[in-house]
Amino acid sequence: MAVQVSVIGSGAAWGGAAEEIGRLLAERGCTVVTGGLGEVMSAAHRGAKSGGGTTIAILPGERRDDANRWADHVVVTGIGHARNLAVAASGDAVIAVGGSYGTLAEIAFALRLGRRVVALEGAPTTEGVELATSPAQAVELALRDLA
Amino acid sequence: MAVQVSVIGSGAAWGGAAEEIGRLLAERGCTVVTGGLGEVMSAAHRGAKSGGGTTIAILPGERRDDANRWADHVVVTGIGHARNLAVAASGDAVIAVGGSYGTLAEIAFALRLGRRVVALEGAPTTEGVELATSPAQAVELALRDLA
Amino acid sequence: MAVQVSVIGSGAAWGGAAEEIGRLLAERGCTVVTGGLGEVMSAAHRGAKSGGGTTIAILPGERRDDANRWADHVVVTGIGHARNLAVAASGDAVIAVGGSYGTLAEIAFALRLGRRVVALEGAPTTEGVELATSPAQAVELALRDLA
Amino acid sequence: MAVQVSVIGSGAAWGGAAEEIGRLLAERGCTVVTGGLGEVMSAAHRGAKSGGGTTIAILPGERRDDANRWADHVVVTGIGHARNLAVAASGDAVIAVGGSYGTLAEIAFALRLGRRVVALEGAPTTEGVELATSPAQAVELALRDLA
Repeated sequence: MAVQVSVIGSGAAWGGAAEEIGRLLAERGCTVVTGGLGEVMSAAHRGAKSGGGTTIAILPGERRDDANRWADHVVVTGIGHARNLAVAASGDAVIAVGGSYGTLAEIAFALRLGRRVVALEGAPTTEGVELATSPAQAVELALRDLA
Repeated sequence: MAVQVSVIGSGAAWGGAAEEIGRLLAERGCTVVTGGLGEVMSAAHRGAKSGGGTTIAILPGERRDDANRWADHVVVTGIGHARNLAVAASGDAVIAVGGSYGTLAEIAFALRLGRRVVALEGAPTTEGVELATSPAQAVELALRDLA
Repeated sequence: MAVQVSVIGSGAAWGGAAEEIGRLLAERGCTVVTGGLGEVMSAAHRGAKSGGGTTIAILPGERRDDANRWADHVVVTGIGHARNLAVAASGDAVIAVGGSYGTLAEIAFALRLGRRVVALEGAPTTEGVELATSPAQAVELALRDLA
Repeated sequence: MAVQVSVIGSGAAWGGAAEEIGRLLAERGCTVVTGGLGEVMSAAHRGAKSGGGTTIAILPGERRDDANRWADHVVVTGIGHARNLAVAASGDAVIAVGGSYGTLAEIAFALRLGRRVVALEGAPTTEGVELATSPAQAVELALRDLA
């Protein structure tokens, strides 16, 4: 099975960084998991597709059509914000790009479950998170010894 | 995006039927979604892989390693039996093969969300479920007008 | 701790029966748990309050205000239909009154978790459910050896 | 309906503070909601009972017996860490006492849903959380304009 990396976050300003992270992950052979909606999520998926990768959307709602159009596979959870646990848990590593409280909940769950968490500078952070100053470094830190 | 079909159920006796259903779905170009564990779930995934298809596991626990070895993509939900909602909701159609109370919960959720549900004879059933007497017919009923 | 009984179901026609069940449960000292919204859920709560009892609402949404006005205590889950698992699991016994697919999902989960399930005639049913022909009998069956 | 306040956190060292917060909340007429297990959760419940209050446990597992013995009402969610969303959402306000990643996830969800969050010094915190230096101040901040 391919290594799965969850890219989490929000904020229109972070699209470029998220897209680059998605592309770099795909080039390293990783599957890119996100919450399946817009901004950072769609940008990471778009980047992954441009890098020839595979993408998984884990949606909060009950309709598959809510997924962004770069999602190859769509998991429709129907559990609202609680799907943040699934997004965090489904990554062998997690990379945060921008974001706010929802992102912080994902980071906290990821750490609680022992997943590696890397935050691009500007994302919420807490003890246990590794900080990166560029998309390339974020991917490097996330994948060391994984892919 | 490929059509996604969730194959649900349990019971060692149903492995052969589940495997055939997985293979037929893959040959029709569908992605096979299951709860990711053993028996019907692993058999459907194995069949899908033998048919050249793609498989998604939606696990109840917190560890990716719980997935059967035919799972291409693994969603780790951490929400126990509540992941049955995600399994049901993630299928454009749902096929039940054997199974008991957990399967019935998935059938009920799928119907609640307006998904088409086909049960191979022997699976739990309720009003609104279409019955099939063979794996081929189950796939035929599930995919009519979808794939 | 008081015995907790979950009353599940839907349908305006079932309000009278649900209210009587709620009242009888309260008179036997039980706390009445429901999904917290209208019809069967509000009727069971109203009955419980008229019998001097205590009520708990387990809501699918994110706002406490969604609860019916007979709810003493409100649990706001935010997980949509997956809260049906919590409603089923929180009863030492479960009584179904009317209802459709959502009710069937709750029945299935309750049986999966080993809870006793009683259905008033007219509710969805499956193997393992005990049938009652009156509210009084439903309460009797649900509470035998419990309260 | 009584005001509901969720007390979250963990760590044996925080039992005394949590118990005092539970007692003060009860004396102000509030219902004390927790995750229903030990340490901060049981201490807050014990304090609430000593103050004549009412307590609600929102458990992660599938068994009512997991609740601490000061829990009056028990909601059995079966959804693991995702129950943290329900604990956060069920409080009109949330008070954090000690704790680690699970607590941070609850704080993040509470803020995401617009709940007021107060952290006793020593708990995880983030932007939007109000800090208190004593149990009395934590209760004061949490309840201003609520109870």
